Amino acid sequence: MANHGQKVKMGMVGGGPGAFIGAVHRMAAILDHKIELVCGAFSSDAEKSKQCGSELGLDESRVYESYGQMFEMESKLPAQKRMKFVSIVTPNHLHFPIAKMAMEYGFEVVCDKPLAFNMKEANDLEKISKQTGRSFCVTYNYTGYPMVKQAREMIRIGKIGKIRRVVVEYLQGWLATDLEASGQKQASWRTDPSRAGVAGCIGDIGSHAENIITYITGLEISEICADLTKFVQDRKLDDDGNILLRFQNGAKGVMLASQISVGEENDLVIKVYGEKGSVYWKQTEPNTLIVKWLNDATEIFRTSGNSVLASAAHNTRLPVGHPEGFIEAFANLYRNFASTIHARSQGFEPEPQNLDFPGLADGIRGMAFIEAVIKSSNQNSQWVHLSEKR
Amino acid sequence: MANHGQKVKMGMVGGGPGAFIGAVHRMAAILDHKIELVCGAFSSDAEKSKQCGSELGLDESRVYESYGQMFEMESKLPAQKRMKFVSIVTPNHLHFPIAKMAMEYGFEVVCDKPLAFNMKEANDLEKISKQTGRSFCVTYNYTGYPMVKQAREMIRIGKIGKIRRVVVEYLQGWLATDLEASGQKQASWRTDPSRAGVAGCIGDIGSHAENIITYITGLEISEICADLTKFVQDRKLDDDGNILLRFQNGAKGVMLASQISVGEENDLVIKVYGEKGSVYWKQTEPNTLIVKWLNDATEIFRTSGNSVLASAAHNTRLPVGHPEGFIEAFANLYRNFASTIHARSQGFEPEPQNLDFPGLADGIRGMAFIEAVIKSSNQNSQWVHLSEKR
Amino acid sequence: MANHGQKVKMGMVGGGPGAFIGAVHRMAAILDHKIELVCGAFSSDAEKSKQCGSELGLDESRVYESYGQMFEMESKLPAQKRMKFVSIVTPNHLHFPIAKMAMEYGFEVVCDKPLAFNMKEANDLEKISKQTGRSFCVTYNYTGYPMVKQAREMIRIGKIGKIRRVVVEYLQGWLATDLEASGQKQASWRTDPSRAGVAGCIGDIGSHAENIITYITGLEISEICADLTKFVQDRKLDDDGNILLRFQNGAKGVMLASQISVGEENDLVIKVYGEKGSVYWKQTEPNTLIVKWLNDATEIFRTSGNSVLASAAHNTRLPVGHPEGFIEAFANLYRNFASTIHARSQGFEPEPQNLDFPGLADGIRGMAFIEAVIKSSNQNSQWVHLSEKR
Amino acid sequence: MANHGQKVKMGMVGGGPGAFIGAVHRMAAILDHKIELVCGAFSSDAEKSKQCGSELGLDESRVYESYGQMFEMESKLPAQKRMKFVSIVTPNHLHFPIAKMAMEYGFEVVCDKPLAFNMKEANDLEKISKQTGRSFCVTYNYTGYPMVKQAREMIRIGKIGKIRRVVVEYLQGWLATDLEASGQKQASWRTDPSRAGVAGCIGDIGSHAENIITYITGLEISEICADLTKFVQDRKLDDDGNILLRFQNGAKGVMLASQISVGEENDLVIKVYGEKGSVYWKQTEPNTLIVKWLNDATEIFRTSGNSVLASAAHNTRLPVGHPEGFIEAFANLYRNFASTIHARSQGFEPEPQNLDFPGLADGIRGMAFIEAVIKSSNQNSQWVHLSEKR
Repeated sequence: MANHGQKVKMGMVGGGPGAFIGAVHRMAAILDHKIELVCGAFSSDAEKSKQCGSELGLDESRVYESYGQMFEMESKLPAQKRMKFVSIVTPNHLHFPIAKMAMEYGFEVVCDKPLAFNMKEANDLEKISKQTGRSFCVTYNYTGYPMVKQAREMIRIGKIGKIRRVVVEYLQGWLATDLEASGQKQASWRTDPSRAGVAGCIGDIGSHAENIITYITGLEISEICADLTKFVQDRKLDDDGNILLRFQNGAKGVMLASQISVGEENDLVIKVYGEKGSVYWKQTEPNTLIVKWLNDATEIFRTSGNSVLASAAHNTRLPVGHPEGFIEAFANLYRNFASTIHARSQGFEPEPQNLDFPGLADGIRGMAFIEAVIKSSNQNSQWVHLSEKR
Repeated sequence: MANHGQKVKMGMVGGGPGAFIGAVHRMAAILDHKIELVCGAFSSDAEKSKQCGSELGLDESRVYESYGQMFEMESKLPAQKRMKFVSIVTPNHLHFPIAKMAMEYGFEVVCDKPLAFNMKEANDLEKISKQTGRSFCVTYNYTGYPMVKQAREMIRIGKIGKIRRVVVEYLQGWLATDLEASGQKQASWRTDPSRAGVAGCIGDIGSHAENIITYITGLEISEICADLTKFVQDRKLDDDGNILLRFQNGAKGVMLASQISVGEENDLVIKVYGEKGSVYWKQTEPNTLIVKWLNDATEIFRTSGNSVLASAAHNTRLPVGHPEGFIEAFANLYRNFASTIHARSQGFEPEPQNLDFPGLADGIRGMAFIEAVIKSSNQNSQWVHLSEKR
Repeated sequence: MANHGQKVKMGMVGGGPGAFIGAVHRMAAILDHKIELVCGAFSSDAEKSKQCGSELGLDESRVYESYGQMFEMESKLPAQKRMKFVSIVTPNHLHFPIAKMAMEYGFEVVCDKPLAFNMKEANDLEKISKQTGRSFCVTYNYTGYPMVKQAREMIRIGKIGKIRRVVVEYLQGWLATDLEASGQKQASWRTDPSRAGVAGCIGDIGSHAENIITYITGLEISEICADLTKFVQDRKLDDDGNILLRFQNGAKGVMLASQISVGEENDLVIKVYGEKGSVYWKQTEPNTLIVKWLNDATEIFRTSGNSVLASAAHNTRLPVGHPEGFIEAFANLYRNFASTIHARSQGFEPEPQNLDFPGLADGIRGMAFIEAVIKSSNQNSQWVHLSEKR
Repeated sequence: MANHGQKVKMGMVGGGPGAFIGAVHRMAAILDHKIELVCGAFSSDAEKSKQCGSELGLDESRVYESYGQMFEMESKLPAQKRMKFVSIVTPNHLHFPIAKMAMEYGFEVVCDKPLAFNMKEANDLEKISKQTGRSFCVTYNYTGYPMVKQAREMIRIGKIGKIRRVVVEYLQGWLATDLEASGQKQASWRTDPSRAGVAGCIGDIGSHAENIITYITGLEISEICADLTKFVQDRKLDDDGNILLRFQNGAKGVMLASQISVGEENDLVIKVYGEKGSVYWKQTEPNTLIVKWLNDATEIFRTSGNSVLASAAHNTRLPVGHPEGFIEAFANLYRNFASTIHARSQGFEPEPQNLDFPGLADGIRGMAFIEAVIKSSNQNSQWVHLSEKR
């Protein structure tokens, strides 16, 4: 990307004190010198928002009291100065109104996952995006890792043959106790149906698991059979789920998602088995991809290492053996998205490799998945078709 | 065990040329100088049986043409000389008639898993065992590993708290192609309903997975919801299965069993999550047990290493860092069983630590599991109660 | 650090096209929103420098043709606007003149390692720093990892007892062939005595290895016995070295440094053995620290995980299981340094935890180490005292 | 091997109560049904010897009071009945007299390492072997692992190119305290110069390390530069050593051997770097061999897995994923040796693959290595040529 000395300007909604993911978005956004954070409405508490803006070195005049104010004021600024896109890092129930308003004001949108509070909102966002012509990125950030892209590309070009079996685990232990009772900010809203939506664990991390399956395999889930549980007393949403999967091509699979698995950190693992080979990737050691073969020795691919394919290389910053982590993977989404909207705003065709970021289709499919899982679990694990859901 | 210069005498049925598991049983049996292989009917082909006996250094007169002949002839030998117990390592459909006859002739029995061809046979064996007073070992050999025993004991004494979640994977890739078409002996009978029974993969390795769950956790599975698949064309039995589990104490779980997972070897993995900690064990690195804690650093226990409990130590032969493997774990079943029957035959109470081998209750529970899985899968993954099955 | 809306302003010398490490410095510097890159002299080729500045979104007027020009022009800018410190990311032979001039113009300095071209320059820099009162950071970046700090702190408070044995490996394979013949920029200057100095591999990565030993153990190397080799034909500097170490407290050790170890990436590993325990850390999986005990089970500490000490926590940005990598560790040096000079410039005492960055003493000790290693190797591996060298 | 129903008969000297390695030898010997333990002089204490023989199920008449008595009595038995070879598992100082007498009585010999108490004895054993025509196996057991053989064979056929660099670590922690003061049998003799010889750690495990280097690489060490230490107070022999290596082909290397490395178990690791690839093997996970390539993805070879070469396959008993351990590797030496002497005794040429066991040349080279290391360390780490030593 040649941006000729001009960074793409970003605003943020949410991400005030105590909001882990907001800080990640900000670090990810600026990492490559392509994006500049110029404004924000970081908290519903104006004082906290101000403090946050100050710590980030923002111009006071561009730290807003509300997202509504932000969109209005920014839209009045000269094009050279005003924000180009907004990053939405609030709890789920606010994604829709903010994203809607942002697009209506003409801003492009980066929004955390799950896309919306429910299916209807998700579908509406797609309509608004089409009407307004705004670009949209949903931060399914795990697809940003180079070795995830390596896996996807190897599968796409047929290396492991027709896929038969997919296993995804996404295990955490941080909600093994009733952390929400302590007032911890992350736990509070993620276990609260009025802010998180119909699903807890499945919405928070199951949705990532669904997305990485589809991204890597290129397959769509056709049916699911789910058994969700609330292990922690008085919790209002699921904190654990086991889900059988069937795919359109006849493949089978399993998804395990849990936030009460004591000792697990952020253990997202995917294994895909084809007729000729299989791939294994694990987020906590993200720079390694293990590929096993029917008749040959197992191979290990490494970020920036030998035999790495173009899509992985494009999303890598360092030589092999210099670990890239969560922030760098996240930054790949921002860089690809920013490059794309920059090109579009200049009237150029975006480079194909920069179109590689998750969008509204991913977000909508994710919502359909969540709702199907809830339905199946409520029906004592009957199979539910995903296609019926949209 | 003091056996005063006298080894326990063993005969074998099955285990002729090409039979991998027969050779394992024999190595396992003799490893500790407590058991002597004295006779065998190694093959239905008398010539092959003879050759096998010769290679094993057996007295020609004690290599028999059939198991019937073996039981008859051996029973006529003086007590000092005749075999004490028989090891049955044939395909599944022969377990019942051989074990039955052995007990009726007064021999103790070691039998490979699954216990029998169906539930009725399994129940009948229990009756015969009670009537004849014969001891019985079913070789769920994975419970023989020291670190499996460490996990079991840590859970039993409450280290990880009440169990919430159990995940077992047993993945192999050796049946990813139609190996049975090549005439390979292992593949042939394991995919043949007339010799293997109603289940393929689930009977062969799912049954091990069920056993290790129960052994380690002390929990019983109450309900299962299964989705089995035959991926290889023209195969007659399942070669892959995903199963949701519910336990009597409210815990949930998942079992993954597959023989078409390209690149997987003999990858049996168990993870058990309690309210205070979790354990992780994997068969391909069997001397390591990883225990994660709610509030403390993760711990690694090692065979013969620091902080190992008594039941693990009893089943260990070497100092830490000297890897013990599959044969040694298998040998623990033989040694414990032989010590037990030796003590009983001498009129002593067996030492409690030697009673630690899988028996008929395990074998019967395993058959119930297999039949419930088949039923659930045939009913499009409806939940099936295990308790109903017996 | 409260920087009240104002970022610390940084300039850069070096780091133009093809310079891997310059880009790392820039990403590391800005990651935490505490530092702003405001100017640079990125290349001795003015055109390249300009292009680089443009891509970084810099104001054209602050992209300079030379570092001399930069220091002069910046020093004339109002304090609010001018750069506060310079980051020097050139080949080694330029460190001294640039750092010297920077300090003389009143700028603080961040300089890549090794500190200088030779011992004399290193000592001179210390004098200049004292005379000018300028702060100085030498980017031994591997000390920035949270688990390195955890190891250091556990050792400092006596957890593993008196240290007996230290082993450091720093292995790479990228110079296994004569890459410099291809004109590759990194290889060219690092194998060229006129730019790299007296040492190749030992200067480039052995110096990191020396630094991490001292940082983690708190011990100083007293004697070394070295055997260096140039494996690649026509190479002018060592590309491989094995070094025996003796420490002032009686401990022994070994350092292995190699750039011709085919297949190794950037494999820095340190193992420290005390009387009561030992620690193990490896840069390619940097978020894990393994601690083994005389009488207890091995423990695994993880970045942001249970039982992490304060110095590790201070240098961590994400929750456990969200991998932090090379850039984040590097960023810790920048953030701590920037916080320190900001506090000093405001007349405050820096927070103790922000004083945790490598400085001139580290740089000088590193030069002494390099020169002693060369001397020992030239004398067919005679023991050489390090203390004699300063 | 066809041994036509007749096992090769073995006697044992040493290996009484508390002697870990004697029990290993016995399990290893019988594992494959090719060898039968028929007699022994297990202890210098006749009572203990008797008890040991009884526990092993030996005929009382063949449990002897001394090795002298054993050789005399056994030599008078009919050929069909008498022992064919003796296994010597005593402390080092007794290897020579026992092995000498055994050969003079006409018995073949298996002897634990190091071969003898000093170089002279080692050379004498070679002479006696030639004079008597007796076969001799020195149990450098780590060469028995299938993946060690895979590494050796891959190197032999040129896969990794000319070797440049070899690193061997053999680390243990069991002597980190003065265990010998407690009377522990293993520690007592291994730290006692009158029984162990001139070297402690280097004799006990350094000798294994030397052997595995030569076995895998096919290179001979030409010069060594050693720094040995006694860390534990009042210990009489080295318990730790770091050694620089030079090889005849110009390769360089390092050996680390330590018995005071707290937390290490029996951590023998070898890494060999060639011009085109490198191999990595570690004894505690012995069924894995990692091979890294200059330009291709890293490969993992597994015991019994894809792409395994003939010499590895010959020394493997189980399908892939069924871990083979220390005893199985040890058993490969016994099986190959027994097959060889059986063939020779029948007048056949031994099969080439069965000649793959360590012999007197290995034992002698090992003694030369030990003496050179001691000499170098005594001379403050001067380089010492190994060739001068023989």
